[in-house]
Amino acid sequence: MVPRYARAPMTAIWSPETRLRIWFEIEAHATDALAELGVVPKDAAAALWRWYDGVKAASPDGEAPIDVAAIDAIEAVTKHDVIAFLTWVAEQVGPEARFMHQGMTSSDVLDTALAVQLARAADILIADLDTLLAAIKSRAQEHRYTPTIGRSHGIHAEPVTFGLKLAQAYAEFARNRERLVAARADIATCAISGAVGTFANIDPRVEEHVAEKLGLSVEPVSTQVIPRDRHAMFFATLGVIAGSIERLATEIRHLQRTEVLEAEEYFSPGQKGSSAMPHKRNPVLTENLTGLARMVRGYVTPALENVALWHERDISHSSVERYIGPDATITLDFALARLTGVVEKLVVYPARMQKNLDRMGGLVHSQRVLLALTQAGVSREDSYRLVQRNAMKVWESDGELSLLELLKADPEVTAALPAEEIEARFDLDYHFKHVDTIFARVFPS
Amino acid sequence: MVPRYARAPMTAIWSPETRLRIWFEIEAHATDALAELGVVPKDAAAALWRWYDGVKAASPDGEAPIDVAAIDAIEAVTKHDVIAFLTWVAEQVGPEARFMHQGMTSSDVLDTALAVQLARAADILIADLDTLLAAIKSRAQEHRYTPTIGRSHGIHAEPVTFGLKLAQAYAEFARNRERLVAARADIATCAISGAVGTFANIDPRVEEHVAEKLGLSVEPVSTQVIPRDRHAMFFATLGVIAGSIERLATEIRHLQRTEVLEAEEYFSPGQKGSSAMPHKRNPVLTENLTGLARMVRGYVTPALENVALWHERDISHSSVERYIGPDATITLDFALARLTGVVEKLVVYPARMQKNLDRMGGLVHSQRVLLALTQAGVSREDSYRLVQRNAMKVWESDGELSLLELLKADPEVTAALPAEEIEARFDLDYHFKHVDTIFARVFPS
Amino acid sequence: MVPRYARAPMTAIWSPETRLRIWFEIEAHATDALAELGVVPKDAAAALWRWYDGVKAASPDGEAPIDVAAIDAIEAVTKHDVIAFLTWVAEQVGPEARFMHQGMTSSDVLDTALAVQLARAADILIADLDTLLAAIKSRAQEHRYTPTIGRSHGIHAEPVTFGLKLAQAYAEFARNRERLVAARADIATCAISGAVGTFANIDPRVEEHVAEKLGLSVEPVSTQVIPRDRHAMFFATLGVIAGSIERLATEIRHLQRTEVLEAEEYFSPGQKGSSAMPHKRNPVLTENLTGLARMVRGYVTPALENVALWHERDISHSSVERYIGPDATITLDFALARLTGVVEKLVVYPARMQKNLDRMGGLVHSQRVLLALTQAGVSREDSYRLVQRNAMKVWESDGELSLLELLKADPEVTAALPAEEIEARFDLDYHFKHVDTIFARVFPS
Amino acid sequence: MVPRYARAPMTAIWSPETRLRIWFEIEAHATDALAELGVVPKDAAAALWRWYDGVKAASPDGEAPIDVAAIDAIEAVTKHDVIAFLTWVAEQVGPEARFMHQGMTSSDVLDTALAVQLARAADILIADLDTLLAAIKSRAQEHRYTPTIGRSHGIHAEPVTFGLKLAQAYAEFARNRERLVAARADIATCAISGAVGTFANIDPRVEEHVAEKLGLSVEPVSTQVIPRDRHAMFFATLGVIAGSIERLATEIRHLQRTEVLEAEEYFSPGQKGSSAMPHKRNPVLTENLTGLARMVRGYVTPALENVALWHERDISHSSVERYIGPDATITLDFALARLTGVVEKLVVYPARMQKNLDRMGGLVHSQRVLLALTQAGVSREDSYRLVQRNAMKVWESDGELSLLELLKADPEVTAALPAEEIEARFDLDYHFKHVDTIFARVFPS
Repeated sequence: MVPRYARAPMTAIWSPETRLRIWFEIEAHATDALAELGVVPKDAAAALWRWYDGVKAASPDGEAPIDVAAIDAIEAVTKHDVIAFLTWVAEQVGPEARFMHQGMTSSDVLDTALAVQLARAADILIADLDTLLAAIKSRAQEHRYTPTIGRSHGIHAEPVTFGLKLAQAYAEFARNRERLVAARADIATCAISGAVGTFANIDPRVEEHVAEKLGLSVEPVSTQVIPRDRHAMFFATLGVIAGSIERLATEIRHLQRTEVLEAEEYFSPGQKGSSAMPHKRNPVLTENLTGLARMVRGYVTPALENVALWHERDISHSSVERYIGPDATITLDFALARLTGVVEKLVVYPARMQKNLDRMGGLVHSQRVLLALTQAGVSREDSYRLVQRNAMKVWESDGELSLLELLKADPEVTAALPAEEIEARFDLDYHFKHVDTIFARVFPS
Repeated sequence: MVPRYARAPMTAIWSPETRLRIWFEIEAHATDALAELGVVPKDAAAALWRWYDGVKAASPDGEAPIDVAAIDAIEAVTKHDVIAFLTWVAEQVGPEARFMHQGMTSSDVLDTALAVQLARAADILIADLDTLLAAIKSRAQEHRYTPTIGRSHGIHAEPVTFGLKLAQAYAEFARNRERLVAARADIATCAISGAVGTFANIDPRVEEHVAEKLGLSVEPVSTQVIPRDRHAMFFATLGVIAGSIERLATEIRHLQRTEVLEAEEYFSPGQKGSSAMPHKRNPVLTENLTGLARMVRGYVTPALENVALWHERDISHSSVERYIGPDATITLDFALARLTGVVEKLVVYPARMQKNLDRMGGLVHSQRVLLALTQAGVSREDSYRLVQRNAMKVWESDGELSLLELLKADPEVTAALPAEEIEARFDLDYHFKHVDTIFARVFPS
Repeated sequence: MVPRYARAPMTAIWSPETRLRIWFEIEAHATDALAELGVVPKDAAAALWRWYDGVKAASPDGEAPIDVAAIDAIEAVTKHDVIAFLTWVAEQVGPEARFMHQGMTSSDVLDTALAVQLARAADILIADLDTLLAAIKSRAQEHRYTPTIGRSHGIHAEPVTFGLKLAQAYAEFARNRERLVAARADIATCAISGAVGTFANIDPRVEEHVAEKLGLSVEPVSTQVIPRDRHAMFFATLGVIAGSIERLATEIRHLQRTEVLEAEEYFSPGQKGSSAMPHKRNPVLTENLTGLARMVRGYVTPALENVALWHERDISHSSVERYIGPDATITLDFALARLTGVVEKLVVYPARMQKNLDRMGGLVHSQRVLLALTQAGVSREDSYRLVQRNAMKVWESDGELSLLELLKADPEVTAALPAEEIEARFDLDYHFKHVDTIFARVFPS
Repeated sequence: MVPRYARAPMTAIWSPETRLRIWFEIEAHATDALAELGVVPKDAAAALWRWYDGVKAASPDGEAPIDVAAIDAIEAVTKHDVIAFLTWVAEQVGPEARFMHQGMTSSDVLDTALAVQLARAADILIADLDTLLAAIKSRAQEHRYTPTIGRSHGIHAEPVTFGLKLAQAYAEFARNRERLVAARADIATCAISGAVGTFANIDPRVEEHVAEKLGLSVEPVSTQVIPRDRHAMFFATLGVIAGSIERLATEIRHLQRTEVLEAEEYFSPGQKGSSAMPHKRNPVLTENLTGLARMVRGYVTPALENVALWHERDISHSSVERYIGPDATITLDFALARLTGVVEKLVVYPARMQKNLDRMGGLVHSQRVLLALTQAGVSREDSYRLVQRNAMKVWESDGELSLLELLKADPEVTAALPAEEIEARFDLDYHFKHVDTIFARVFPS
């Protein structure tokens, strides 16, 4: 975790305190169920909640205080985190606490707690996507008809609108939202099934109760651990989202290039672009997002390698998750929020877009002329040749010559297509007649 | 593509002939729609199908013959694959062919064809998963109550059944099937939207028609290309499935170790395990699957890097897809089929499983004794200490001593728990009382 | 392997025939050594070479013909590749062949053969780098003093020369050459050490002899297999080289953008850029190189995962190497050759470079003015403010205003720095005074 | 960075204080050189050192105190880290500080500082490797002749010694040390070359001076930044080392399996293996190392993606390096130290190794019998058949039958090989006659 790329609510999910509070709640809900089943005294469960609710009520922030240092000190001796935690809770609660964790295994607590953390993290990320989607939608509507050049291979192709660019980004992030919802469901499962998942010492109804209380589904078959294909799918999904972030960030970086300058990241008055070149306004936020995307993608492979645990479980996944659990979610949360800010405040230059559109001497309309010639009965090959020879002249003039004028002066062209027919092919609006169709697909009302 | 890891039906999807046939069908369906809209003559479309159906009917295998070499020769001159293809088709069909591809761009054909190929590949993979699931289910039912030791960290933990191990694999691959169905839907989209996706020169109804005919959904907004987050998600999903393959393969490799030998890959009579050590039966299929899983996972990162194309598109994704399109799907298809064979023919040794279960002197029952002591009123710490001191003696005896005998001889233990109570904790069936519960979750009738 | 991204000499290294010839040579050299040590009859070795040299001499291409199909047919029965090969050789050579492979294990042959293949592949790649370096050097010298704008963040910074850009590429690929030489040494080792590497049944002098004959070093300690950290390092090095290819390819893609157009890939007269837009000249080769770089990098992770074999060996690495051995080397070979062609034929537009340099109204000189002001006694903060306020006006004028004129008209500036002093800061040659220093570092004569 | 996987000296390298101290030293050395060249007053440089040495002398830990919070506060306004730092230094030093950073660009400081940090990190890692190598060597010598079974595919093959296993690990880590030394040289370069690397505003002698003072080499050609192929190579090398760590860790995990139990991680008396199963001693350290290896490998891909910066530089690499700079080096340092501890304290069970060796009824000697038969004139195929049919009986008896006895009772075998000749092939020492040869190769005296 890199503090400068972290936001508080997501970071809080991964604090030791949060984790231990979730542990407590799992244990206490399980004890409730055990009490209900008559396995442990009802008082045992009640004592746990009595203590917990008491310290919560007494706490200024409404969260139960957890003495992480004390628990760490116990762990330094026992070398076992859950035992250390249980020992500490027992010190707080008193003798009734000994009924806690009855028939459970450490992983019942650890894995279910991780599921809660990842589900909460996913909720934040889904909310992030919603905010981003709203920002993109708003800018897309604003620039629905702002003409700009579409580029393939970095080369001018045909006109699009800036709104269309954003509509594509919207559709992409809307897909990502759907994927994330599915990935959240994949990891939000509860396992309270004992040492090797057989429920030998614990009734499956305990698992059902805890799952329900924590808003999780029941893991159909666990083997001490929740299977890691679920987590692999979750982190792979974050990696795909990172790819989409990089795509939009790269678009903005391109648009901000000196020679293009169709849009710029917002540049606050006090900000200095460079110690050496005061005129520079660098797309540092989107460059940063490109790097952050690399990191989130980089966490996919360790997650995939985590799937193949040995037999019922080995613990090799655990250290990996201590890194990528926080790092992937905190980084992606930050990146989504940063991207949202960039989109919301993006300075768009329609005049420059128009200037760039015009600078190619009308070459972008060549496709329409080509089609018109074919429809007028010229063979595909000849049409291509006719357009190409004029287009090449325009191209070599570096924008000085106009394709329209050249075509009107080419007798072989005008033999097939009268001047007014040629002119009609240079109409920009022609390209935008289906913008509304696309918007209706992407933003259904 | 490595021929030895390839099966014919999947490989056929990626042959030039198949690709070019899909190209033809896209063009012909599009021409149908264009004719319906009055843009091109109805005869143009009819001529295409007339030729195609004719050569198909005349072909021994019922597939339209495509002269790949001739098309390659044209491409060597034009340096453009779709133009080369159209030129060749025009040579076959005659002058009506000039109406083909009207208003379309190459990527309309290329990307939609890739969608068809990936969807077909996904269909095979889904069928592979179904066959694998059936094999796992059958073996799981067969070994529903076959006792075997559950291991965490490679160390004996508590008893499970071999059927439970397979039930977990079943549940995991059932999840993978669901993910793959979602991933298939993600890539099965059709884009016929022109040079930069604006439908400037082609009516969106053409796209709708082609999509419907090919069983694809309509890409809501394309930018010459179908966005690559879809493909990234698809290949990431294959990577997760590969992780699950490695997990089951690793399990079998472990079970086949000389010292464990609870199961073995089927070893045909003529097969030689090693030139040097004739007694060896090596788990070479599952080792091979481990390697194949690495490859399928390795294709995830290039797919993720493909997402961030420049502006409306660049062509950097194309070479990547020429590798991973075939390589990931062919390899995964082969791996799933190989794993199915391994599972179907797996030689299982229940006697050896029982022998291994017994070799630890009953240590696997220590957890139950621990619980019994706690329930009998001994503190958690004391219970732990009592069980541990006896368990350590068993452990150090390398299986010579029996935990049951030691516990019955430990007065501090018997003070809390009479001998018959201790003995009751060494009952194997105790562990299997919820096997049916788990099976009902995994294999709902 | 994708045929269109493959060149014949590299592909030939990975043909079954080449591999089997290397197997034969390993076996025959080993038999020589065994004969020398008196373990097998001298005639046995001689018979092998007699047959081999005979069929080589009789072969039109001077290479021993190997009947791959026949060997495959034997393998289909034995399910063991080396036994199949030995059986076939015995059929050709006669009874003396039974002394072949004495005391060896299959991996002695397989791993040493792979070392030979990788070393040969490395030799081609090193030669590729040499050709690329020569091409870059030649173009660097040609454009040693061609002024162009240096860009950071895609934004104009200060002037550089186009030769400097290429000098950086040269230095980077020269480092890559060094790394590849080291990586080649890492994988070029010979292991003939028997079933678990103890030389139980074979004298270490056999290994030494074979190593010497094949130009390999001796593997100090093998365990049936050559350790895979060597191969991991090799493929990781190819991944770094791929990164450098992507860097130079990306530079060219940027330079070819419509708005920049300072250089272009060579565009042959007959080539069609796009079916729809005849004026387009797309940087398709460098885009393609970007994709190929992703693939070569993608092979690094499977190679890293191959290191941790179980005990003395498992065979999981083998399938991985069947893919990445050919795929990584063939792809990188192709990519290096393609990049060399792009560099050699790159069309450079110095006039456009100058035009771009000029379009920012002199903003690129702002840093020098800033320094001059500081040296004239103005505080850093004030200097920055003075330059920035004028620079911003230029920037907002979109190149219409000139920084030089504005500064000369700003009394607060001229109070510290007379007009002629300001003008002196706008001299382009000032920036190039150390070009020769850098060239001397990069291209030592 | 995950605190529990971090050691203080490595972590200290990545503290803000350390980084800022390096920044200061770069600036001060550069100012020295500038003063020497007459560009700035000698007093300017002297003032910097006077302040620095003064505060160092006054500091309890001998390190110059840096007020990170104050600098962060300035950066919050300027949004530029180096300017914030320079501003703060100027506040401490006084007016002479304005000569600092003359002609330099931020990256001159940032990149050179990163080089210093990575070089220091490499020094620690090299020392870690030395300690690990010493530990492995010591245990290898101790167990030079401890017999144990060599396994391929997890199946018993032929005898090795435990010392040989460790000798292989030693050779592997010795190679890694060499690679790391090379990788260190690759990243230990100094760039002080100005805004786009042309030395327009700074004399190359400044770079030379700073490089020498900091123990770095001079970057031959930089472009504001040091090229990232260097860093990619560095992190790729760490990834390879991680692979080797996983290999040795996996070996130990296998050896500690219940059924194998030939070695165990040291288990301290107070340690609790599991809350549920007190008899368990799990190889948690080596499992943990397996996970840490995944992380270090996972950082390779982002580093490779960092190479292709845009033009003279973009800043996308920076965020990546904020993660992987600390995370990869801190994790690898911790992992190497942990592995060293595991090796040093590894509990080895020679008796169990012997027991495992014996449990296969002598099958491990089959290869020798096979050879003896061949040498006695039996064809390879017949020899194989004879050995195999007896070996299979042993195998199927689960160790009850003895290969030696069966062979001696097989008339077809004894016809070729008398009983005493067969017995001679069952001598364990036969396998160890070259142990000294291998040790001499790996540990040259």
